[in-house]
Amino acid sequence: MHICIIGAAGMVGRKLAERVAKNGNIDGHAVETMTLVDVVAPEAPAGFTGKVNIETVDLSTPGEAERLVAARPDVFFHLAAIVSGEAELDFDKGYRINLDGTRYLFDAIRIANGEDGYKPRVVFTSSIAVFGAPLPYPIPDEFHTTPLTSYGTQKAICELLLSDYSRRGFFEGIGIRLPTICIRPGKPNKAASGFFSGILREPLVGKEAVLPVSDDVRHWHASPRSAVGFLLHGATIDLDEVGPRRNLSMPGLSATVGEQIEALRRVAGDKAVALIRREPDEMVMQMCAGWAPGFEAKRARALGFTAENSFDEIIQAHIEDELGGKL
Amino acid sequence: MHICIIGAAGMVGRKLAERVAKNGNIDGHAVETMTLVDVVAPEAPAGFTGKVNIETVDLSTPGEAERLVAARPDVFFHLAAIVSGEAELDFDKGYRINLDGTRYLFDAIRIANGEDGYKPRVVFTSSIAVFGAPLPYPIPDEFHTTPLTSYGTQKAICELLLSDYSRRGFFEGIGIRLPTICIRPGKPNKAASGFFSGILREPLVGKEAVLPVSDDVRHWHASPRSAVGFLLHGATIDLDEVGPRRNLSMPGLSATVGEQIEALRRVAGDKAVALIRREPDEMVMQMCAGWAPGFEAKRARALGFTAENSFDEIIQAHIEDELGGKL
Repeated sequence: MHICIIGAAGMVGRKLAERVAKNGNIDGHAVETMTLVDVVAPEAPAGFTGKVNIETVDLSTPGEAERLVAARPDVFFHLAAIVSGEAELDFDKGYRINLDGTRYLFDAIRIANGEDGYKPRVVFTSSIAVFGAPLPYPIPDEFHTTPLTSYGTQKAICELLLSDYSRRGFFEGIGIRLPTICIRPGKPNKAASGFFSGILREPLVGKEAVLPVSDDVRHWHASPRSAVGFLLHGATIDLDEVGPRRNLSMPGLSATVGEQIEALRRVAGDKAVALIRREPDEMVMQMCAGWAPGFEAKRARALGFTAENSFDEIIQAHIEDELGGKL
Repeated sequence: MHICIIGAAGMVGRKLAERVAKNGNIDGHAVETMTLVDVVAPEAPAGFTGKVNIETVDLSTPGEAERLVAARPDVFFHLAAIVSGEAELDFDKGYRINLDGTRYLFDAIRIANGEDGYKPRVVFTSSIAVFGAPLPYPIPDEFHTTPLTSYGTQKAICELLLSDYSRRGFFEGIGIRLPTICIRPGKPNKAASGFFSGILREPLVGKEAVLPVSDDVRHWHASPRSAVGFLLHGATIDLDEVGPRRNLSMPGLSATVGEQIEALRRVAGDKAVALIRREPDEMVMQMCAGWAPGFEAKRARALGFTAENSFDEIIQAHIEDELGGKL
């Protein structure tokens, strides 16, 4: 099998490539070739015995999608996107990369399909940002998508394209609405939602972290490990079982900040919890109020997608995957 | 006020122009100029005392939207679209006209907004085709849009763009999801849904009509008169009251074919009903099974959009508007 990961230099894309390299297969299907694509050259994952192609490509440049499609990968994992904050600040760039880039890819596949019947699997990473407040808790699978950001709008549009192109038989599409990824590894960043990871990641290594919201803020989380699992399951799932509604809200864990902190206490003790410094930030609190508190995700669970059941598990996954298995 | 109707040669566009011409105003706002746009030259409505500009324009030709925006209309009514059947048969044409054409218009306004703060009202006609089976009855306002046609996909995408462009302040957008228009005037056409109008329109003038489905088929209807009313109300409604969710399922009448026929009997007698010839068509019955049976339309009703409450009223509106007021 030849897989192509677009957005392979990002956190989830990198972990996806590493997992495939480690396993050598996806659900029993041997992977012989990995094409890793991003606007900056992605790194080849360690330990992969197959062929790796590194492509430095901006998908929103006309003609580039055709080049990727020409190699006829069996599976595309499309993770490339301008993130929420940047898409909000730069309207043109957001639409160009998140919408037009995706459409170029879908159309390049459609044209190849018309040429020789090529019909790859396309695993598209969408986001819970397709939902906009006011939101019920939990959000049912049939709730409408009324995004309140340009990023969420772009993702919701690509979901619609994915469904229609799949329905018409141009490719086998599936859209994966990722929860907020927690614990996001790496350094603290300026994302407004960064504290959800920060208040766990930093104290786990003895560093201070700032908590800008109150303990009762509820949000929807899954580990990087689960996110990779969703994408891999999407690559091989029987789409007849999925049916025509191809965009799925993934399972995750709905938890309050207070519950996150208690999990940290159980795993790493009071000393770790004491490193969380409360600095209420009115703006972040207002933004949080519009974010998804949690989903039913009944369909995705019934289709075999799985995530963590407690924050203890999420913290444990981080310790295993990022801290060498111990505190 | 200067209004621009794109798709003014279509049935609803024409009736909209006629109503504005007759009233001379929209909700008390005098209309001095009407720009009527379509791919074939629309007719100027009778009795309008203001200025009429006739424009033969294909919105999907780059640069044409800019030309329409250059005149800085106060209100755009955007009704232009390739219909469902054609969008399904001709993939490229459907996306080009229904999606790209609309995006060209929205972007031309956005750029004008950046130049001089221009911020028109944009009344976009969407469709219940944004919903796809299986559907509950009635469909609540918060039900997700999972279209099963390319036409419905294109409309759903434009709804998302409309919301985002409105949220960002580029224009004042509102999306109007029209029910099936019944009784559609004119000759029988080949639309699979044509019989909903045909079984009333033809017998009312002593002609035979074919009914391809069973009496218990339920669907969602509004008269052409109501459709025009929705668009006019959309042109002046207070959008602060509407809030960020700018696409509204319009009110209508949920009725079975049997209920339609009984209304025909009450209005025009057994002789008219005897002109309906039952010719079951398996294909049409299958298509019908996927169509929307009816909506709650709570939000639209609360916002002052109104439609008929019985099929007797719908038939009466047709008699008044198309048959000179009498049978």
